[in-house]
Amino acid sequence: MKKNSALFLAFCLGTGTLAFAQAIKDAKPNAGSPGYGLFLPGDITADLARIAINAAIQKAQEQGTLMNIAIVDAGGNLKAFSRMDGAFLASIDIAIKKAKTARGLNMPTSQLHDASVPGAELYGIEVTNNGLVIFGGGELLKNKDGIIIGAIGVSGSSVANDVAAAQAGAAAVLEAWR
Amino acid sequence: MKKNSALFLAFCLGTGTLAFAQAIKDAKPNAGSPGYGLFLPGDITADLARIAINAAIQKAQEQGTLMNIAIVDAGGNLKAFSRMDGAFLASIDIAIKKAKTARGLNMPTSQLHDASVPGAELYGIEVTNNGLVIFGGGELLKNKDGIIIGAIGVSGSSVANDVAAAQAGAAAVLEAWR
Amino acid sequence: MKKNSALFLAFCLGTGTLAFAQAIKDAKPNAGSPGYGLFLPGDITADLARIAINAAIQKAQEQGTLMNIAIVDAGGNLKAFSRMDGAFLASIDIAIKKAKTARGLNMPTSQLHDASVPGAELYGIEVTNNGLVIFGGGELLKNKDGIIIGAIGVSGSSVANDVAAAQAGAAAVLEAWR
Amino acid sequence: MKKNSALFLAFCLGTGTLAFAQAIKDAKPNAGSPGYGLFLPGDITADLARIAINAAIQKAQEQGTLMNIAIVDAGGNLKAFSRMDGAFLASIDIAIKKAKTARGLNMPTSQLHDASVPGAELYGIEVTNNGLVIFGGGELLKNKDGIIIGAIGVSGSSVANDVAAAQAGAAAVLEAWR
Repeated sequence: MKKNSALFLAFCLGTGTLAFAQAIKDAKPNAGSPGYGLFLPGDITADLARIAINAAIQKAQEQGTLMNIAIVDAGGNLKAFSRMDGAFLASIDIAIKKAKTARGLNMPTSQLHDASVPGAELYGIEVTNNGLVIFGGGELLKNKDGIIIGAIGVSGSSVANDVAAAQAGAAAVLEAWR
Repeated sequence: MKKNSALFLAFCLGTGTLAFAQAIKDAKPNAGSPGYGLFLPGDITADLARIAINAAIQKAQEQGTLMNIAIVDAGGNLKAFSRMDGAFLASIDIAIKKAKTARGLNMPTSQLHDASVPGAELYGIEVTNNGLVIFGGGELLKNKDGIIIGAIGVSGSSVANDVAAAQAGAAAVLEAWR
Repeated sequence: MKKNSALFLAFCLGTGTLAFAQAIKDAKPNAGSPGYGLFLPGDITADLARIAINAAIQKAQEQGTLMNIAIVDAGGNLKAFSRMDGAFLASIDIAIKKAKTARGLNMPTSQLHDASVPGAELYGIEVTNNGLVIFGGGELLKNKDGIIIGAIGVSGSSVANDVAAAQAGAAAVLEAWR
Repeated sequence: MKKNSALFLAFCLGTGTLAFAQAIKDAKPNAGSPGYGLFLPGDITADLARIAINAAIQKAQEQGTLMNIAIVDAGGNLKAFSRMDGAFLASIDIAIKKAKTARGLNMPTSQLHDASVPGAELYGIEVTNNGLVIFGGGELLKNKDGIIIGAIGVSGSSVANDVAAAQAGAAAVLEAWR
C-alpha cells in the first residue's frame, strides 16, 4: 500500500486574485508527490477509497442489493461516491450522511439508535449537523495502526445489508495495509 | 458498452414495517438486470460514470493538477464522485454544483459566465438552485445518439484545466459507445 | 395518450453570452416534438401530471377536503403543483416532500411510518434529504409497463384522506395509458 | 369570474393532538365555500392560477420555447406550478424564485437588475431571502382593482421571452375579471 507523505505547497503567495490565479496556474506537483494541495498523512487516499467502494459493491452484488456508497476522509469531507444502477435516490444523501455521522462521532452509526430514542441521552441528536443518520450503515475506516482515516456510509437496502456492505468496505481498507 | 434495459421489480408487497423490511430483504435482481430499483434507460450507468471519472483523472495527471470530479445522472442526482489526494476541499461542492448546473441548463457551465456578469441578461442567476456555478468545468454527458444522460463537473485548478478535464470525461463517455 | 419520444436539439452553438442567448432565442422545437430541451422518454409528461392533479382534486372535492398536490418526475424534480383555495400553507412543502420521498425510495410514503418510529430500523430517516415525509400521502406514478415515471404527493387533510387523493391521482395516470 | 369570499372555519378547537386530528377529520367545507381553511379574499384562486399558467404556456408555444411557470399567492406562497416537457431543470427554482421576488418586492423582477449591479443601491440583494432573482420573468398578478393578489414567475428561455410569457399570464388574470 502506497502511503502518501504529507506535502503542502504554499501556493497562495498573495492575497489578491491575480496571485491566487497565478499560483493555481503554476501549480506543478513534484514527481511522486500527492500534488500542490495539502494532503494529510493520516487521511484516506483515493486508492483506498476505491478499494472500499469496490468491496462494498461486491458485497452488495452477493446480497443482490443496490447500494449508494460514500467515503469521507478524516476531516469528514466527501472523498468518493458511487451509486449502483437502480439504487434509491434518497440513499445518495443517506449514504453521505452515514459516513459523515460515523466520522463526526467516531463510531459506527448503528451505535446511535439506542442513544437517540425518546428518553435516551442523545434524543434529538439527529437534527444537528444538518442531519445525522442514527441507524446502521456508517462505519469507520482505519489504517493498520488503528487510526481513523475516514468513514464509509452505505444505503440502499435493509439496515443489516447496509451494515454488512459498509463493514466489507472497512475490512478491505484494513486488508490493503497488509 | 453494455446498455441496461429498464427494469422495475415491484418489491413493495405490503404496507407495514415488516413488509417493507421483508420486501427489501427479498429483493433479488434478475440475472442481467440492473436491480430491483428503477433505472431509467436514458440514464448514465455506474460503468460509464467510472469511465468519465477515470478519463478526467488521467487528464488531470497529464496536467499535473488535482481535481474533484462529480457525475450526475439525467435527473441531476449524484451518481459518482472522486477527489484526488490533495485536491481542494471547497472544490467538492463546486464540482458537484458544476455537474448539476450543466444538467440543469443543458449546457456547459462555461457558457454562463458572460451571461451572468453585471449588466448581462442573467446577472445573479448563480444564487438560484442553492447555488449554480457560472464558470467553466461542468460539461454534459451524452450517449451515442446525442441524448443527454448526465453531466460531469470538475474543480481543482484553473478554469481552463477544469474544462479540459471535464471535456476529457465527456469524450470518454462518447467513445465508450463506439 | 400521447407518448413523447426523446428529442434533443443541440442548441448550444457557441460559448459566449451572445451565442447562448441567440441559441435560446433560435430554439424551435420540431412539430410534434417535446421541444429543444432534454425530455426523458420514461419521464412523466405535463399532460399526465395534469391528469394526476385533476384526479386528486376531484377526490378531495368528494371528500370535502382542501389539498396541496405535487408531482415530481422520474428524477425527483418538481413537474407540477396545485394548491386548492384555503389549503394549508405548510402543506406546500409537505406535498412536495411526499412526492420526492416516494420517488427517492420507490415506495409509498405510508410504508415509512412503522419503519421510522423509535426502536424501528429506520428511526430518524426523516432528517435526511433535507426532510423526508414518513407518513402517507406520497405515491408512485407508473406507466402501463409498471415503470416508475414520477410520484405524487398530497397534503392537506387526515393522512387517510391524503393517501386516498394521492392514490386517485396515481390511478388516473394508469388509466390514461389505456 | 367567481370571487371567493373570505371564510375561516375555526377548526383548531383545542391544542392537543387529538383535537387537532379530530378537527381535520371533521372538516366539512360549506357548499360554495372555499373550504375549511383560511382563504384570504385578496388572494389568487386556483382557477386564476390555472388561467395564468395556461396563458403563459400558450405564449411559450407561440414562441417555440419551453417554460417553467410558477404562481405564488399574495402571501408569496407557491400556489401552482407547471413545467413543460423538456424545460430546464434549473428553471424550476428560478421560476419559483422569480414569482417570490416579484411579490416580495411588489415589482417586476426586471426592475431589479440595474439596482443590484456593483455600485448600485441594492448591490447584493439577490443573496437574501434564500435567493432572489434579479432579472426579468417575474411579474405581479393583480385583480380588477389593481390590488396585488400574487405573482407569476417564468423561466426557460431568454429573459425577453420569459418576460413576455409572464406578462401574458398576468394579462390573462386581468382579463378574467372582465
